[in-house]
Amino acid sequence: MRLRNKPWAKDKLKQYPQYVILSPQDYKGKWTEAFEKDLPLHIEIGTGKGRFITEMARKNPKINYLGIELQESVLVSALDRLIEAELPNVKLLNVNAANLKEYFAKGDVERIYLNFSDPWPKKRHEKRRLTYKSFLDLYKDILVDEGEIHFKTDNQGLFEYSLVSFSEYGLLLKDISLDLHKSNFEGNVMTEYEQKFSEKGNRIYRCEVKFQ
Amino acid sequence: MRLRNKPWAKDKLKQYPQYVILSPQDYKGKWTEAFEKDLPLHIEIGTGKGRFITEMARKNPKINYLGIELQESVLVSALDRLIEAELPNVKLLNVNAANLKEYFAKGDVERIYLNFSDPWPKKRHEKRRLTYKSFLDLYKDILVDEGEIHFKTDNQGLFEYSLVSFSEYGLLLKDISLDLHKSNFEGNVMTEYEQKFSEKGNRIYRCEVKFQ
Repeated sequence: MRLRNKPWAKDKLKQYPQYVILSPQDYKGKWTEAFEKDLPLHIEIGTGKGRFITEMARKNPKINYLGIELQESVLVSALDRLIEAELPNVKLLNVNAANLKEYFAKGDVERIYLNFSDPWPKKRHEKRRLTYKSFLDLYKDILVDEGEIHFKTDNQGLFEYSLVSFSEYGLLLKDISLDLHKSNFEGNVMTEYEQKFSEKGNRIYRCEVKFQ
Repeated sequence: MRLRNKPWAKDKLKQYPQYVILSPQDYKGKWTEAFEKDLPLHIEIGTGKGRFITEMARKNPKINYLGIELQESVLVSALDRLIEAELPNVKLLNVNAANLKEYFAKGDVERIYLNFSDPWPKKRHEKRRLTYKSFLDLYKDILVDEGEIHFKTDNQGLFEYSLVSFSEYGLLLKDISLDLHKSNFEGNVMTEYEQKFSEKGNRIYRCEVKFQ
């Protein structure tokens, strides 16, 4: 995603503590306190402009959602969406996914969404891919037992890599679609990127995997 | 594959015992006796007209190959290939894959190739797919420990199904290509069907999985 420099973004995020959680470490082990209702928590890592997480929150009022995004200049767009949507079950977090364990205890999260993560195609950048084994370690440490990762991407190389990485880690492949928009998968919520990309007629790959 | 009725096929197969093994049960546990040299055994289930197995045997003289095919009318074409190729390390077997255990003991086979297997797309025919769990049981019972299945197909649905089936069975996904002919996989040997299909510009899916 092309990033526009928005020097005011950081300040704006701080002005909406009801949407952007400023001290996430305070909720470690007790995330239900950050929301109105005690519901299962699903997080999206790399939430971008927040279309996916906001739509998911609207469609699934019995789930609490957290959108995690490192780039303030993008996250302010997600914030604008949340301000407009006025939903009680979705919040944002402006942190680095590499530090997830500072903010979440084992069992805090029921499901992790990875949508159109950066493919980092060069072999020397493998460790930065969000499906690399060190990230799977992190996810395992914050998910419930049998917690799930739901992953979609348009990047064939990243998808191939991730399936092998999941398998090597011992994750169970529950569901897979090699052409999501032509599949019979129901209720797909598109990200901004997904909409733009799929309009060109390209494929979206998707899978669900479970820790066991 | 469209099958032509060839009433003479069965007789022709019997006339070439040096290529078509007529009493495979006699070699159970001692397949090396069926070949000139004591080499690892790789088998292809559904060998069709035999292009793949013959080319593999030519390229890999340090492997013994067995092509297994139930349809006599197709297997005679594979026989014609073998007669012409005069290779010491490839033979044919006219048996049903469901009966593999009658002919192979545990550890007889090092690798199984499944190429463009019948997709049996209807859910009620799931048990006939060569990647259904009961077939994986059979493969496990005849393969060496850490034996492998190398699988390719043009059928998206069968490939999706098979990845999930492999994962549920606890197989390790070693390698995957979601567009084989555009990948950097080297040394691909095409089947007759693969050549015809890929010339239309369609994708070939491929994976390698390992028992563990």
